[in-house]
Amino acid sequence: MSLDTAALKPQERLASRLADDLEAVNAMIRARMASDHAPRIPEVTAHLIEAGGKRLRPMLTLAAARACGYAGPYHVHLAATVEFIHTATLLHDDVVDESRQRRGRPTANLLWDNKSSVLVGDYLFARSFQLMVETGNLRVLDILADASATIAEGEVLQLTAARNLATGEDTYIRIVRGKTAALFSAATRVGAVIAGAAPAVEAALFAYGDALGIAFQIADDLLDYAGTDAIGKNRGDDLREGKLTLPVIRAIARAEGTERAFWERTIARGQVTDGDVAEAHALMTRHGALESTGDTARDWAARAQATLEPVPPGDLRDMLSDLAGYVVSRIA
Amino acid sequence: MSLDTAALKPQERLASRLADDLEAVNAMIRARMASDHAPRIPEVTAHLIEAGGKRLRPMLTLAAARACGYAGPYHVHLAATVEFIHTATLLHDDVVDESRQRRGRPTANLLWDNKSSVLVGDYLFARSFQLMVETGNLRVLDILADASATIAEGEVLQLTAARNLATGEDTYIRIVRGKTAALFSAATRVGAVIAGAAPAVEAALFAYGDALGIAFQIADDLLDYAGTDAIGKNRGDDLREGKLTLPVIRAIARAEGTERAFWERTIARGQVTDGDVAEAHALMTRHGALESTGDTARDWAARAQATLEPVPPGDLRDMLSDLAGYVVSRIA
Repeated sequence: MSLDTAALKPQERLASRLADDLEAVNAMIRARMASDHAPRIPEVTAHLIEAGGKRLRPMLTLAAARACGYAGPYHVHLAATVEFIHTATLLHDDVVDESRQRRGRPTANLLWDNKSSVLVGDYLFARSFQLMVETGNLRVLDILADASATIAEGEVLQLTAARNLATGEDTYIRIVRGKTAALFSAATRVGAVIAGAAPAVEAALFAYGDALGIAFQIADDLLDYAGTDAIGKNRGDDLREGKLTLPVIRAIARAEGTERAFWERTIARGQVTDGDVAEAHALMTRHGALESTGDTARDWAARAQATLEPVPPGDLRDMLSDLAGYVVSRIA
Repeated sequence: MSLDTAALKPQERLASRLADDLEAVNAMIRARMASDHAPRIPEVTAHLIEAGGKRLRPMLTLAAARACGYAGPYHVHLAATVEFIHTATLLHDDVVDESRQRRGRPTANLLWDNKSSVLVGDYLFARSFQLMVETGNLRVLDILADASATIAEGEVLQLTAARNLATGEDTYIRIVRGKTAALFSAATRVGAVIAGAAPAVEAALFAYGDALGIAFQIADDLLDYAGTDAIGKNRGDDLREGKLTLPVIRAIARAEGTERAFWERTIARGQVTDGDVAEAHALMTRHGALESTGDTARDWAARAQATLEPVPPGDLRDMLSDLAGYVVSRIA
């Protein structure tokens, strides 16, 4: 590795290493998000897809396939598939969460309307389905169908768990698998499958994606309370939406009296005023909930790194390992 | 045919003829709409699936497969797949149309919320995808993936064509293919494919489903103006939603002066008051738009019947032919 690339973040090094593949993925995404008859579709999709997404999920598929020695064309289809599924879920999430900002820009539901976001999301999901069918590989179809069901089930579970103070860590992890880790683990696994990897390698890449996704989401949930405004997220969104994320669950577990009343007012009843995000942060700090949540994220990242052992050694495996370290470095 | 069954409607005779298959489909639907972790999912789905839907689309798949001599198990999976896709699109449609009633009952978006309808729809779409993967047949996956994209594209097109008085009959037919005929034609075609039917038979059953779906939707759109309240539809909904359906397009084509102003106020600007549905009906009658729309629906039904010629003769082919006559008998 040159000094130049050593200074880059792991996903930037992956993007550089996989530049040709990524360009093919981007070309396929542009070609397949078109619609001859409904110009609203590419408008909405382009707004989101070209808004500087990191292409993290497609890179996982490309890296897994290449790490397993794949030389065929279909890792590109699968990487585009994974990005389309991700984009479709973002469109629907923003409707469900009534979000106004995504990646530093107004959301599609705000710029157009909820209707367009719902239907264009459906279109992208159908397009992703066409792309994966083109691979002709029934095992990847099976994996991606199961991941789609896990994603949707996790989203419904998140919806019904919102504002419910009794939500426990098991339910939280199930929601996290649905909203994030299921697509990460499917992305890495289909890369292995299309490359014809041995079962142990496929299982390792699946477990890596799962642990990486959980580490990533826990870090994200922590940053919603502990982060700075510089990261472009709306701090305190989760409190306002009454989401039972890990730092909240752990703070509630130790809350009594007035603290309990605070969580009941904000999370359960949705009465959130100006100083409440700071107060939530203070309560979490008092009980070590932020620190222990960070520890849990780091545990999952370490698990992701450890699972990579059966994967053929090489620069791609190293970058995947570094990536797991990086997703939790944001909360260090 | 006995005197008893002769008195039944064609879809009732199909349901009677395919009773065992339909029972297997219903059992599969019940099993697959479950969710171990998110009870909201079966609640919402049961509300819609058990509300007395006619199971028309699954019957098309079963009838096509059986007419082609299929004796395997997978027509049941495909019929359940088709019903899940249909249910998912109904859930999303009701969000997009802000509907309050469906099949004579309050809609899911009204009983629960838009969020649940969006996410449970996504779940059912993922479940349909799992079901079709189980058939192990890449051609049916290809057909259903294409149909899914056509459906979503048609829905977006309908959204962007709403309130646009310049919408022509070509666009209308494209929308109708998306919202109705694409799933009808995929339903009949996958029945033929799973049965290993000859290409000419497969093409015939595809063309039948396409023409049947178009006839069905044109009749439905006509009934929104010409029907009685007894059919359980909210008369005039399409006017209030500014939908450019065939009778409206034909009435607008002949409108001048105050008539043109009427359509601009109601359809384009969405200002609909109490007497406007009756006034729309009067304008359509004056220009023969209702009658000519009925003729077009009957033409498509006749086309559906004519396309059945290559299908193996028998009671199922006869019932499919009768069904095409029946869908337009509602507007006689």
